[in-house]
Amino acid sequence: MKAMINNIDNIIKHINESNDFIVTSHISPDGDNVGSTLAMYYCLKKLNKNVYYVLDDNTPLNLKFLVKGVEILRSNELKINDYSLISLDCGDKSRICVSDEIINNSNKLICIDHHASNNYYGDLNYIDSEASSTCELVYNLLVRFYQVSNLNLIDEKVATALYTGLVTDTGNFSYSSTHPSSFEMAKELLILGAKRDTIIQNVFQSNPFNFYKLLGDALNTLDIVESKIASIMLTKEMLKKYSISFNDVDAITSYTRDIQGVEVGILLKEKKENEVKVSLRSKNYVDVSEIAKTFNGGGHVRAAGCTIYDSIENAKKLVLQEVLKTI
Amino acid sequence: MKAMINNIDNIIKHINESNDFIVTSHISPDGDNVGSTLAMYYCLKKLNKNVYYVLDDNTPLNLKFLVKGVEILRSNELKINDYSLISLDCGDKSRICVSDEIINNSNKLICIDHHASNNYYGDLNYIDSEASSTCELVYNLLVRFYQVSNLNLIDEKVATALYTGLVTDTGNFSYSSTHPSSFEMAKELLILGAKRDTIIQNVFQSNPFNFYKLLGDALNTLDIVESKIASIMLTKEMLKKYSISFNDVDAITSYTRDIQGVEVGILLKEKKENEVKVSLRSKNYVDVSEIAKTFNGGGHVRAAGCTIYDSIENAKKLVLQEVLKTI
Repeated sequence: MKAMINNIDNIIKHINESNDFIVTSHISPDGDNVGSTLAMYYCLKKLNKNVYYVLDDNTPLNLKFLVKGVEILRSNELKINDYSLISLDCGDKSRICVSDEIINNSNKLICIDHHASNNYYGDLNYIDSEASSTCELVYNLLVRFYQVSNLNLIDEKVATALYTGLVTDTGNFSYSSTHPSSFEMAKELLILGAKRDTIIQNVFQSNPFNFYKLLGDALNTLDIVESKIASIMLTKEMLKKYSISFNDVDAITSYTRDIQGVEVGILLKEKKENEVKVSLRSKNYVDVSEIAKTFNGGGHVRAAGCTIYDSIENAKKLVLQEVLKTI
Repeated sequence: MKAMINNIDNIIKHINESNDFIVTSHISPDGDNVGSTLAMYYCLKKLNKNVYYVLDDNTPLNLKFLVKGVEILRSNELKINDYSLISLDCGDKSRICVSDEIINNSNKLICIDHHASNNYYGDLNYIDSEASSTCELVYNLLVRFYQVSNLNLIDEKVATALYTGLVTDTGNFSYSSTHPSSFEMAKELLILGAKRDTIIQNVFQSNPFNFYKLLGDALNTLDIVESKIASIMLTKEMLKKYSISFNDVDAITSYTRDIQGVEVGILLKEKKENEVKVSLRSKNYVDVSEIAKTFNGGGHVRAAGCTIYDSIENAKKLVLQEVLKTI
């Protein structure tokens, strides 16, 4: 804990002593990515710093409400030379979503992150893989900032940004990474004005009508093997029928896992003929990253993926063969 | 607030001065119903009271883990005459899920509830319609009990029961009834040993395979009116086809609400011919408890219910007529 406080304090010291910052995060933005980057951006603005939010990727539709009115630059639009780069929620230096030039030219690389795989790639690091979210780390930093400077930087906007990362990275406080400290943070953010209802509605309650029609069809393909392996198939015709993008159906994967007695859930998505994206989830004991590896894929123990170049029916057979070996 | 404290204190005083209790709740048990009743049951046991858990309805499958080893009696199995009846989470005296005889023969009827429609039907009442859940009220009572007696009744089992009601009645902390106090409670319950992961897996990730097949069919009935009202119909044939109990399908209600632009979601469940249970949800501005009231139902501003004695098609028309007046 002492070391962690020191890390925070070094970052606070550096912020106090510097004027120019770029804040950024990882490719394929999510709630914790946008929330933590945006919170840091607002706070540096409040401290009258010169700060740029740079990210070479698009904000997902359900998070656009959060960045409304915020100028997010692409790497090639940036015109400063002398700056510190703050990388938030990015476990791997190679996933930082700005140009290599911006990374290499920074005076100081500051890394704030909660990924277990983070190798402390920053010049200054505040890493805690036990934390629920990077937003919780930014919150801790702001609480510490208040302790040392008596300046509260958490206004309604900052609270809203941080709350978003907290709920998205904890699956609405349901993952085991949700600690008592996460609830303390949620409580304080609500008191400080976090627009909880706006967040919930935009992030979780604004699915397209057609998504649910597609889900209905998808559930008709739900299949279970040996009571422990469940799978759903999404053909390209199904996606086309409802005009739902290939990238907007990953939430369906959880329906294969959240079944009584099921250990491994499989979602098969047909991208085009003889190209099937496979998402794998496990509940308790199967390492699905090992299964994905046999098809040149990868991922984590409980969530992994791969691509199989065959028909969707054959892809299902091939994956089931591998999964059955682990059950 | 003063009045509320007094209510709690009167109930605590009565508990301290009495020996025999029946705890019960409303028909069609849910997480807050089971959690609050069970927590009160365990606490009265700890105080060496003679206590019976009586309920003339079945515990939903996903909550069975909570009541494992607990004897839940039917009204006709009960053989005591002299008792206080504690009704938890029951907004209406007519919904108390024990026989009229048990209600009428009680020495004292104690009501602990958070439904706005509650008319203070108990001899002693602790009602707070602002509370997230009845479990939050039981938690407040136990905190107050600790303040006055220095006796902590919240062990792992009680914490787990209360946490269950909190997450189910707040939709995983997402409803606007989730206050800073709810997060304070969640934090303390985690510290006191609430088995959060067990709750999440059992309540949300252990759906019967057939539940998802039913959901698939249910989504085929998904209908939207004026882009703002969505409904799903579950006929008794659909429930029978998949052997899913009437009490195990309430989770489907949220699919009607979580659609982009939808303000009111409606789930129509056919219990038997010409008896349809209607669940209503709203997102922003429609008070669905008012709609439920026109059909002699009740509930909360954002979640309410009623029963319509007509065909499911007519019930849908009747509810839509009322909802359309509010949009």
